[in-house]
Amino acid sequence: MCNGMKIIRDIAEMQKLCLSLKRKGRTIGFVPTMGSLHKGHISLIQRARRHNDFVVVSIFVNPIQFSPGEDFKKYPRDLVLDSAICRKERVDVIFYPESRKLYPQAFRTYVEVKGPSDVLCGKFRPGHFRGVATVVSKLFNIVQPDRSYFGQKDIQQLIIIKRMVEDLNMPIDIIAMPTVRDSDGLALSSRNIYLSPSQRQDALAVPNSLKIAQSLIKDGLRDARKIKNIISKLIRQRMTIKIDYIEIVDHLSLEPVRKVGNGSVLALAVRVGRTRLIDNLVVRL
Amino acid sequence: MCNGMKIIRDIAEMQKLCLSLKRKGRTIGFVPTMGSLHKGHISLIQRARRHNDFVVVSIFVNPIQFSPGEDFKKYPRDLVLDSAICRKERVDVIFYPESRKLYPQAFRTYVEVKGPSDVLCGKFRPGHFRGVATVVSKLFNIVQPDRSYFGQKDIQQLIIIKRMVEDLNMPIDIIAMPTVRDSDGLALSSRNIYLSPSQRQDALAVPNSLKIAQSLIKDGLRDARKIKNIISKLIRQRMTIKIDYIEIVDHLSLEPVRKVGNGSVLALAVRVGRTRLIDNLVVRL
Repeated sequence: MCNGMKIIRDIAEMQKLCLSLKRKGRTIGFVPTMGSLHKGHISLIQRARRHNDFVVVSIFVNPIQFSPGEDFKKYPRDLVLDSAICRKERVDVIFYPESRKLYPQAFRTYVEVKGPSDVLCGKFRPGHFRGVATVVSKLFNIVQPDRSYFGQKDIQQLIIIKRMVEDLNMPIDIIAMPTVRDSDGLALSSRNIYLSPSQRQDALAVPNSLKIAQSLIKDGLRDARKIKNIISKLIRQRMTIKIDYIEIVDHLSLEPVRKVGNGSVLALAVRVGRTRLIDNLVVRL
Repeated sequence: MCNGMKIIRDIAEMQKLCLSLKRKGRTIGFVPTMGSLHKGHISLIQRARRHNDFVVVSIFVNPIQFSPGEDFKKYPRDLVLDSAICRKERVDVIFYPESRKLYPQAFRTYVEVKGPSDVLCGKFRPGHFRGVATVVSKLFNIVQPDRSYFGQKDIQQLIIIKRMVEDLNMPIDIIAMPTVRDSDGLALSSRNIYLSPSQRQDALAVPNSLKIAQSLIKDGLRDARKIKNIISKLIRQRMTIKIDYIEIVDHLSLEPVRKVGNGSVLALAVRVGRTRLIDNLVVRL
């Protein structure tokens, strides 16, 4: 659109606009986010911009994907900065809905991908992926995208969304984009701002151990248990880090594998102080 | 379409056709069925035909909405007769998908309306409404209807689908059509063919008791417990009928009410021999 970026709060207005674009045969690229945009998000937006007529970025910190005691309230929010970023990237619309409109009192419907939602992060964040699948379903129905973009950093989320789209026959292409890292190797995350400088230093054990795993696999190591033990030892050297899990799983079912193969996913989650960080490596042989 | 009705089995073909119609701004009316079409279905189809450019009827006996031991295998199927009916009613496409294509091995995603799915029939058919909500979500994503038509006979299904569409922001109007009855008063159902002549005679206690309830309410009776007791006694006079439930509930939450008001739903389910029948009365004051 030549008349600049719009911020739309109203669900019906957003949906009406997108339906009318579809009826005119325009393609819609969609990047769902919780805001606090970083270079990872920007890579998704730029890809959406290149391949679609119209680009929508949603900014919504989704309450139903946070467990009690998690960081829903303190999750970073900065619409001014996010808007500037989106405007620079020539986003057409920021969809910025209100929680009480997306989840009115009578709300009762949930979308759940059974199996992949219950392992890895799902064990530590019960209900999280049900919250993700539900809000993404809602946003897809409102924004009516042809293509939607997700970062490989949140690989379990990516796999669950792909499964959901296929299972529910949603006519949407899910495009995965590589994890973007800071110069020190830490995967970009809106939660990185919670880290003190020394915690951040310790957190680098995560990407560093993944790099070591990658080179061990390249050198021929295939035993999943051995690889996990090596990574576990490397990370445990940093006293401030607690490991939630280190797993090597199949990239479709998310079930554990014994022998690493092409497409296997080495996924891990750790806590550095009160900050939960995740990272992963998709094995390419 | 001027070149006659099509039967489409392929999911991708069906979806592609509907998406291309939408891009041309044509409206799609959709009647999801399990086949074995009767006058109840025909009233839905005729309404769809009047109000939409393009009419799709799906015929699919959905395995995931049947519990073990229910009548999935013996559920009546007659595509030849159903096709003739649809052709006569100027349906554009019958969508007739294969179960193994809708539910491949890797299928894991379910849509669930918590609360309304767990009461009334949901108590007696665990998982039934999850199966319904899931398949209807899938069919909606494939057929992309502007409007979809449901009979008031299956009132819990209707209420759950309405709730789902609103909760998940699906851009679809759900149109409810009145229950169609045979000349003896029995609500039309594909399952009525299971009844022997004497069972059918006994089954008439259901519509007859609803009629009596209606006139009692018209005369000023509002006490839900009293009304339920009266109906219960009337039905129990027929020895072959077993009552699953008789409830008077709110038309949105499906929670029981003590005092009958406008929009209250008197819903019941009985078994006549091995045949399960449902019926209901929506109170209009």
